[in-house]
Amino acid sequence: MEIIRIPRIMQQISEGHRLKCRSIGLVPTMGALHEGHLSLIKRSKCENDITVVSIFINPTQFDPNEDLDKYPKEVDSDIQKLKDAGVDTLFMPDAVQMYPDGFSSSIKVSGLDEKLCGAFRPGHFSGVSTVVCKLFNIARPARAYFGQKDFQQTQIIRRMAADLNIGCEIVVCPIVRESDGLAKSSRNIYLSSESRAAALVIYRALNAAADLIRSGESNAAVVKKKMNDLLVSEPLVSEVQYAAVYDPSTLDELSQISKENLLAIAIKIGETRLIDNMLVLI
Amino acid sequence: MEIIRIPRIMQQISEGHRLKCRSIGLVPTMGALHEGHLSLIKRSKCENDITVVSIFINPTQFDPNEDLDKYPKEVDSDIQKLKDAGVDTLFMPDAVQMYPDGFSSSIKVSGLDEKLCGAFRPGHFSGVSTVVCKLFNIARPARAYFGQKDFQQTQIIRRMAADLNIGCEIVVCPIVRESDGLAKSSRNIYLSSESRAAALVIYRALNAAADLIRSGESNAAVVKKKMNDLLVSEPLVSEVQYAAVYDPSTLDELSQISKENLLAIAIKIGETRLIDNMLVLI
Repeated sequence: MEIIRIPRIMQQISEGHRLKCRSIGLVPTMGALHEGHLSLIKRSKCENDITVVSIFINPTQFDPNEDLDKYPKEVDSDIQKLKDAGVDTLFMPDAVQMYPDGFSSSIKVSGLDEKLCGAFRPGHFSGVSTVVCKLFNIARPARAYFGQKDFQQTQIIRRMAADLNIGCEIVVCPIVRESDGLAKSSRNIYLSSESRAAALVIYRALNAAADLIRSGESNAAVVKKKMNDLLVSEPLVSEVQYAAVYDPSTLDELSQISKENLLAIAIKIGETRLIDNMLVLI
Repeated sequence: MEIIRIPRIMQQISEGHRLKCRSIGLVPTMGALHEGHLSLIKRSKCENDITVVSIFINPTQFDPNEDLDKYPKEVDSDIQKLKDAGVDTLFMPDAVQMYPDGFSSSIKVSGLDEKLCGAFRPGHFSGVSTVVCKLFNIARPARAYFGQKDFQQTQIIRRMAADLNIGCEIVVCPIVRESDGLAKSSRNIYLSSESRAAALVIYRALNAAADLIRSGESNAAVVKKKMNDLLVSEPLVSEVQYAAVYDPSTLDELSQISKENLLAIAIKIGETRLIDNMLVLI
């Protein structure tokens, strides 16, 4: 596996693959790799000639009061996991190469970026969109792979890729969970064993809401109340940022259960922010 | 010359050229072609295997009170000029193809976009940056050609292309002028013969300022006053939006004449807005 740190060199490598008609699959990550990331890599290897993984903890998508400084860094074990997974190229730039002096461009996907997490993390999705656009231009993938856990992110990136004619297919892969249902996340490492147990309330709330819908409940307010009641009943949940039923395309909250329903939750347990979601089709 | 109207087809054509290692030069225009545009095409033909010209009157770079509806359209004579110039491909999409339902992405180049014309045309440069990024992704040029007349635009596009790793060289070509000095512009067609004569005050002001600098004046305020005095002395000038000496890199106004000085002017004659500029190196 080659490890590339300079954007221009990565771009030359990608261009070389394209000239030989080799398709590139890109898996953008912030490192601290878990089985969710590995599932994206596996899918990319099935569908492309070359798989490029990027590891870049993107400072512009963190608020000043967020966890940029303590975000888990596990470079050596990440590299071993990527080698074991048969990744061709690891692109691992540093912030100065991605944002040199004078950098001043940003991409905004209006509307989608203000809802759900956007309401609690101003600037987050602009940071994500901008860095993903850069990574697309650097790695020139035919396909890029994202996890459904960041559902809103996948919708915003899809929109941006279509709007800006990026010509890259956005592939969204299922959420990978621990055996007890907790969605895999690099941030789970922040949880004490007590908090870890409390965090299971998210998956319980999603399943309870899905059961309600599948058993015929058509009032989204009832489903929303069920989720919120469960979440606030867990004493270690310090904040419920949102927990409701949304239209998966527009991310608008639904009042009536529809054919396609996105159940989405963001809570805090202590200082750790956790998100999860479930698509329920009826 | 092939004429392509569908972004996806243009993208396939460009991709085909790239796979055959043919370099593409892109000349983005809004049509109503004049010798300024033709000079860009000539340069592109010298430097690339394939020259693509786009004609697209981009609605998102016009304010509601600007001249979008009356912007000159001369499709037949434009096509003839492009054929005569030996252009390979004309890309001429309509607005629905460029901005389909649900379009919601925009690119902002902060700082540079608020100065000079940006202060008088809010949203203009975001509209320009976004459409140029789209055109770059559609035509995948090795080089793209812009006229120095829109100096601020060229600086913003350079910045965007570097920031977003677009991997396209931005080539800026000299201003082409009428024999009496008026900068060629598609908007000159709006001028009556009286206004046309009055518009020459712009070139006189630029030259007078350049002469002052070359004769040793070091106080930019003196140079600025000279330009403004000349401009307001012309009775048909209805508004001087700006006329001063700027740092060509930052577009900040200079108080002291420097090694590189950008003289830039924007005025209105009646309802017609005209811009021009001159670089003075000492």
